[in-house]
Amino acid sequence: MKTIVLLRHGESTWNRENRFTGWTDVDLTEKGVQEAYYAGDLLKDKGMAFDQAYTSYLKRAVKTLNCVLDRLDQDWLPVAKSWRLNEKHYGMLQGLNKSETAKKYGDEQVLVWRRSYDVAPPPVAEDDMNNPRWDPRYREVPDDELPRTESLKSTIERLMPYWEGTILASLKTWDNILVVAHGNTLRGIIKYLKHIPDEKLLSLNLPTAIPYVFEFDDSLNLQKDYFLGDPDEVRRRMEAVASQGQASGNTPAT
Amino acid sequence: MKTIVLLRHGESTWNRENRFTGWTDVDLTEKGVQEAYYAGDLLKDKGMAFDQAYTSYLKRAVKTLNCVLDRLDQDWLPVAKSWRLNEKHYGMLQGLNKSETAKKYGDEQVLVWRRSYDVAPPPVAEDDMNNPRWDPRYREVPDDELPRTESLKSTIERLMPYWEGTILASLKTWDNILVVAHGNTLRGIIKYLKHIPDEKLLSLNLPTAIPYVFEFDDSLNLQKDYFLGDPDEVRRRMEAVASQGQASGNTPAT
Repeated sequence: MKTIVLLRHGESTWNRENRFTGWTDVDLTEKGVQEAYYAGDLLKDKGMAFDQAYTSYLKRAVKTLNCVLDRLDQDWLPVAKSWRLNEKHYGMLQGLNKSETAKKYGDEQVLVWRRSYDVAPPPVAEDDMNNPRWDPRYREVPDDELPRTESLKSTIERLMPYWEGTILASLKTWDNILVVAHGNTLRGIIKYLKHIPDEKLLSLNLPTAIPYVFEFDDSLNLQKDYFLGDPDEVRRRMEAVASQGQASGNTPAT
Repeated sequence: MKTIVLLRHGESTWNRENRFTGWTDVDLTEKGVQEAYYAGDLLKDKGMAFDQAYTSYLKRAVKTLNCVLDRLDQDWLPVAKSWRLNEKHYGMLQGLNKSETAKKYGDEQVLVWRRSYDVAPPPVAEDDMNNPRWDPRYREVPDDELPRTESLKSTIERLMPYWEGTILASLKTWDNILVVAHGNTLRGIIKYLKHIPDEKLLSLNLPTAIPYVFEFDDSLNLQKDYFLGDPDEVRRRMEAVASQGQASGNTPAT
């Protein structure tokens, strides 16, 4: 049997403030750190150990992974980081909270961004210091691959080469893989694994920091998938993520 | 200009208890964590940023590195971990404190281990659960390369392929490299960089968690080397390490 575990990072400072985060490199809150340790405990209680871990270039994911590995006594585990696992880039919306966004762009426009699979927010300007072209961590990425904004569709498109070419490919070598990433890149992976159509993907709300286990046979056919931990807690966190999107009217969990 | 920064991990639980640690995967103390953050602050104050980091398979080094990267806002940095950067393996001495060691092996024998470059302590037994052959993290290492004990000489010998083939080689690609490791593997690197003869290497006491900077010209000729931070603090920590060895009569800082 082979296993991939997906894990969404714990609460970040901008989750708490209900701002669009995207590629902004905000930290975990203390609650987020505790959520990460709890995820590690769930995996440890299940007796899991990993051969390889993957995460993004964003510290809320890297630090969630570090906490998990520490609980598993696997601080030594090889970790590969890739910008392709980063959260969806929210373009000019990054840093805005729900009321700022509605004020600036209007409720109707915001609804389009929220509901559409392939419409991206306005891009960051080329001379904007939040443009990834100015960030040294992306200097190895060809400029024409570096987003200034993304739809869910384009997020998944830039994720796929890494998912198929590296993560999934490594499951031929390894038995147990851990991926710690973000709401929208994890949606992309789940779309691939469970053949979810585009229009249903937007309503897939992944709970924060709850390990999502996918089990495969040796031919890499998916056998089953399930969340670890108390089902009531899982449901509570999924509803929290879903209602966060609804209550704000325009702020998907980022 | 190119730079390699060497950093010895912060205080571990067995440093505090004055036990031979070696490959035992003990954690940092709270003081060790604070030392690691302080090292990160020193590097940040110096305006340093890195292109690649290397560390061992032991959590006291990995977690020291994580703290440093967090202070530098470089959690995203690629990190390569290798068993070849592990501390010297202390064989049967691992877990013993100074009085236990003297009682078990006698003062004279302990003096030989302490003073010699090429005499190793007795190896761990093949069926000893502390034998690295039973540890899944080393399963990719050919059994005949996996030590059951090591002298300083054999520690440096197994380090060198990784130092020359990977770390030093990567300085052709990158300008700034960070290596977080252990007293004896860092001795090996410093021996290489500063051409220190075997008999002088044992008296080289590297302070804990103080960044040691090596600057090279573009042809990789060493230009200068220096410690960051307050010189009095550096001296105090070097003396603390040296006197730890002397006061115990037999316990090198591990």
